[in-house]
Parts: sequence; C-alpha cells; structure tokens
Amino acid sequence: MKKILPRKNIRTLKPYEPGKPIEELQRELKISVKDIIKLASNENPIGPSPKAIEAIRRKLKKLNRYPDGGCFYLKKKLGKKLGLDSENIVMGNGSDEIIDIITKVFLDESHEVIVSEPAFLEYKIITKTRGAKVVTVPVKKEAVSPSISVFKYDTDKILAAIGKNTKIIFLGNPDNPTGAYLGKKELSRFLKKCPKDVIIVLDEAYRGLVASSDYADTVTCTKRRNVVILRTFSKAYGLAGLRIGYALANKQLASWMEKARQPFNVNMLAQVAALAALDDSSHMVKVKSLIEKGRKFLIKKLKELGFDVVETPANFILFSFKGISSTEIFSGLLLQGIIVRDMKPYGLNGLVRVTVGTMRENRKFIEALRKLECSKLFPN
Amino acid sequence: MKKILPRKNIRTLKPYEPGKPIEELQRELKISVKDIIKLASNENPIGPSPKAIEAIRRKLKKLNRYPDGGCFYLKKKLGKKLGLDSENIVMGNGSDEIIDIITKVFLDESHEVIVSEPAFLEYKIITKTRGAKVVTVPVKKEAVSPSISVFKYDTDKILAAIGKNTKIIFLGNPDNPTGAYLGKKELSRFLKKCPKDVIIVLDEAYRGLVASSDYADTVTCTKRRNVVILRTFSKAYGLAGLRIGYALANKQLASWMEKARQPFNVNMLAQVAALAALDDSSHMVKVKSLIEKGRKFLIKKLKELGFDVVETPANFILFSFKGISSTEIFSGLLLQGIIVRDMKPYGLNGLVRVTVGTMRENRKFIEALRKLECSKLFPN
Repeated sequence: MKKILPRKNIRTLKPYEPGKPIEELQRELKISVKDIIKLASNENPIGPSPKAIEAIRRKLKKLNRYPDGGCFYLKKKLGKKLGLDSENIVMGNGSDEIIDIITKVFLDESHEVIVSEPAFLEYKIITKTRGAKVVTVPVKKEAVSPSISVFKYDTDKILAAIGKNTKIIFLGNPDNPTGAYLGKKELSRFLKKCPKDVIIVLDEAYRGLVASSDYADTVTCTKRRNVVILRTFSKAYGLAGLRIGYALANKQLASWMEKARQPFNVNMLAQVAALAALDDSSHMVKVKSLIEKGRKFLIKKLKELGFDVVETPANFILFSFKGISSTEIFSGLLLQGIIVRDMKPYGLNGLVRVTVGTMRENRKFIEALRKLECSKLFPN
Repeated sequence: MKKILPRKNIRTLKPYEPGKPIEELQRELKISVKDIIKLASNENPIGPSPKAIEAIRRKLKKLNRYPDGGCFYLKKKLGKKLGLDSENIVMGNGSDEIIDIITKVFLDESHEVIVSEPAFLEYKIITKTRGAKVVTVPVKKEAVSPSISVFKYDTDKILAAIGKNTKIIFLGNPDNPTGAYLGKKELSRFLKKCPKDVIIVLDEAYRGLVASSDYADTVTCTKRRNVVILRTFSKAYGLAGLRIGYALANKQLASWMEKARQPFNVNMLAQVAALAALDDSSHMVKVKSLIEKGRKFLIKKLKELGFDVVETPANFILFSFKGISSTEIFSGLLLQGIIVRDMKPYGLNGLVRVTVGTMRENRKFIEALRKLECSKLFPN
C-alpha cells in the first residue's frame, strides 16, 4: 500500500525536551503554583522592564492587525544602538527561529556542521532536520580551584575538524549548559584562523548577563563575511514568553536570511515590548546586579555544602556531589517544589544546572539542597 | 576566493510582500494614523474577544518565563471542542509556520507540490525554500450574474497534475485571494480520488467567517492518513498580531510535524488569548454577522457603481472596472488614506481586493471609490 513517510532525517529525530513548565509540575505533583520555584530554564527572575509591559498594554486593541513584517522601528532603534544599519539585522521568533533560518538558507544534505559536545541542543537538532551531518568536538573541563572548574572550548580541535564540507560552526558564547565562551583574544584568534567560507554563528543569548571583563564586544565582527551573531530579548531583557531574538550579520548574509523567513514571524507585542525595553537601561543594570549577587551567593553556599561547582559567566551554575546521581538531586529538589535541570541528557553525568533566581528563590533552593543532602548522605 | 553562498533555491527566491502596515503608509504619506483605513490584509475589523485581552493582561507578569512548549491546555481545549485528541493537533507561530513545518518534514528536492494559480503566495514561496518543484493549475472564473463572478478550483486538472513525485497539494479552503473553495460534495469526491500517498493540505484560515451552507465540516477528514487541516486564530478570532495557528491531522502525521517544530514556537500571550477566545462564542457570532452585513453592503454598492465583482465566501471581495488598471484604483484609494490590495502581483490583472471592514470603514471606502471614479471616468 502507498504510504506517506517523512524525510529520513525527520524519522530519526529526537526533539528538544524543554525544562518542565511550572504548570506541568503542578499537574504531576498536584501542588499549588505558589509553592513552586522554577530555576530550570535560565530565565530572568524579575521579568522585563515595566516600560515593556506598559507598551504591550497600549497595543492590546490592535491585536486584530498583522504585525509589522519588517520590524521597521525595532530594527532602526537596534541599528542605532549598535552602530549598524537595519539591513544588518534579521528578527526572529526567538533566536531558535534564526537558527532554523540559517540552516534553511545554507545547509544541504552534503554539508557538515560543527558543534561542541555538549552544547545547546537546538544546534544539533535543527541541523539534523536539514539532513546535514553534525560533527562534535568535546569541550574541556579545567579546574580553577579544588572545588571549582569551568568548561572551555577546544578551539584547536574545532579548527582541525573543519573539512571541505563544513558549512557552519555553532558556538554559544557563552554556551548553555557548559558556560564555555571565547575571551577577547581567543575569539579574535579563532575568527582569523577560520576559513572564510565557513559560517561562524556566535550565539550570544546571555549577553547582558555576562560579568566577565574578558567578554568581547562583537558588533564589529559583522564586518566579516562569515560571522552571524545571535542575540535575544529572552534572557537579560526578560521577554522569553514573547519570543523575540535576532541575528546581526553583514548585509549579504542578512539579506539571504531575510528572504527565507516567514513574513510575519515576530508578533506585534514582542516588537513593542522589545522597543520599550531598549529604552530602559536602568532596569538592565538592576537585572545584572541581581544576577551577579545571586551567582556569588549560590557558588559560596554550594561550596560550603561540599558540592563541586562548574562556574559559568551567565545566570546559571552547574554542580554535582560525589556519589549522588544528578537524577537523585533533581528528583529530590522536585519533590520540594524546586525545578532545576538534570544534565544527564546532555551527557554531563552527575551535573545539575541551577538558574540564578531572586535572592528569596536562591535561599529556598539552598535550603532544599541542605535537606536533600542530609537525607541522602546521612540516611539514618 | 572562497565565498559563502546560500542554497541555489534561496538565491532565486522572491519573498512574500505583506500588505502595507498602517505605520508604513503614515511614513510614506506623512498623514496621521487616525485618518487611515486598512482594508488590505483580510483582518477582523473589531478585534479579539475582550476575554482574550483580559487573559493577556493577567499574564503580563509572567513574560520572563518561556511559554508552555507543548501548548498543553490549549490543545486540550481545542481537542475537546473538536472531538479530537491533543495528539491530533500541532500548534504554530501562525499557520504560516505550520506550512513551513510541513515542507520541512515531507519535502525533498525531488518532490513536486501542486498549488492553484493564483493562490496564497506562501504555498509557493515556502515550497521553493525547500528546493522542491511547484506545479500550478489555474483556477476557473465562473459568472454568477452579469456583473458577479466567482473563482472555482479545477479539481479535475489538479488530479490530472498528480505525478509520481507529487508529495503535497495545497488548497486554501477558501483560498486567498481567489475565494475558491470546495463545497461538501466536491471536497468528498476530491479526497476520494487523491492518491493516499499525496498529502492534501486544506488551509481553512477563513473558517469562522464563511457564510456558505455548502462549507464542509472537515474535522473527520483527519481520520484520513493524508489530510492536514490548517486553522488559525488570526482571522475570525482577531488575533493576527499575536501569531497563532494550528494543524489538525492524524496522529502519525502530527507526531512527525511535532518533532520538527521549534520547542517554544507559540508565545505565551497567544496561548492564553486563544484559550480565552475559545470560550467566547457570542463574540464570534458578532464578528460573523458584522462581516456578512458588510460583505452584502459592499457587493451591492460596488455593483451600483458599475464595478465587476468577484465574490468570495470570506471577508474579502475582488473588484475591477473596465479600462482602469488595478494599480490606478489602488493608488487613488491610497491617496485618500484607504489601503486595499492590488492583485497584479497575483497575476489577477485589473482586480483589487478589499477586506470587509466595520460599517463605518465600508462606507468610507465606497465614498472614496465614488470620488475616484468620478475623477477617473469623467476627468473633466
């Protein structure tokens, strides 16, 4: 009998597993939403600028209209802020969609894409939907002090992995979940050594939250013909729920990407919220300082409790405890209404990821961990 | 020198040209927004249910959270309303994204896709981004009365165009801009005659606004293995600005599509607005009766003014005037602050499309047309 089949690469595809939404946990555990603390998706814990909320309110009577397909005003304002033209910018339904567009524009089934291992899972998944080959290069773990370490990109191995079919290299900068990133000099060296016909996608989702003084301003990289920078309003700007991200690139690359996007991909409320958020730099200062304070607090407390910690420059921390599996830690916290992320699906056995929350959330998390530790480590 | 090039089919792609947003016209003509009437994008003229707006307001403090990637509650409610399971439903960032997902899942470069000519442009454009071949079958124009006609699908020619590489047939039901649709018997006959390994996508964007008693309830078609039904909250529900549409299909087809979508493709406010809108059937009755009244008014007045009219069962009408180009009509109305759509890019020379507005907007439009006609037809 004649049958419908999807493309082969779709049949074997394992889709992305998002962090548990609070509502889902509520359904499973039958506990009230108020009691649940979600530190699982690297979200901004205090939300967007009040100006963004106000801009949304003013637009609610216009929802019957299609959004501005060209994101005219938003691109203009972003361009001005960054010293670029609107033609250097491609807006997307979150930067997830930009990744999808990049692969749609450039990838054939004969191509190879280099990603680090582990890395943000969407790079792999979206590449596979195109039928292209994923080539992985492991990150390196480096000790900073006895109980603190960091993940680093192995740029030499990445460069060595480039072959004649390599079309794209995806690099979270910093990446989720590893926190790996390229410092100023490393980035400059890496870009110089990459062949000019390989597209380097620098995903800067966490820019705005990164504290490191060694974090490069990459806007000028758009002068290169082979660099695409991804940014988002989901993290530092606290607009994850509305889905809005963008790419910065030279005009030629950007024009091809523009062609392949859907005409109304960015919703109207996301556009006005992003516009207003760009005007509120004091809110951004507040968010950044809250995250820094929370990160320091969490690292200190995790160390005190005897956990091994992997630091990142962004709003999340990885941690593990010798002899306890990450799934045990995850489940133990879940039962106390705290959602974190088990890193087992990323191949980071033993590690759990926690997002920096509000100070109240951070304290509750540490408290829960302490309870967990007592019951696990000293069962009787 | 080594150069970056996009895939060949992207290089030659002509992107979709959206209807002029009001803000863009304002920029061009330097007139105030208040004076502009937009009847160009088949939008609902009175907007969504107040319950939807209220649901959005209640969610504004949660925008820092990612949306529910699975659209759990919305699928559940839709499923209940339609007598289907959640597994029959795939939610998208507008039904545009669903079209994109369908082509991503099923189309290889060796495939052919059948669309009518003219048809909703996205079917062609998105198919081309995949590098598949577009096969077109002209619609037929049939006279209903001396000055009224309709466009009809040529189902026999569509069936005859199916070859061994045909993978998908896109059919707007009714389509934009032609208004062509398949009545109950025609649809049933067509589905029976189509080979079981060809996917038939019935795009029902205008369901909810269609007045015809011959318009089929298609939910049971999802029992077929080769039918995908597209629906949206953009038109009858008045939520175009928020981007939310969905597919109904058998669970196997739907599961493949689910795999290939982005994990957070539908924003949080769209989900809560759609949920609330589904509860407000009295608002839907109001919208539908307003559109019916406006459509009858416009057809009557257009006939009185001597225009030739192409009727559609949805919230738009096509019209022409012998000896005047569609571009002249379009520009003449634009100068009076009324945006309609010139159908020249669709190959429908002479025809202009107007969306049914509020009665005030409809009257203003007829008034402007009367002025235009006087100056054009009787220049001195």
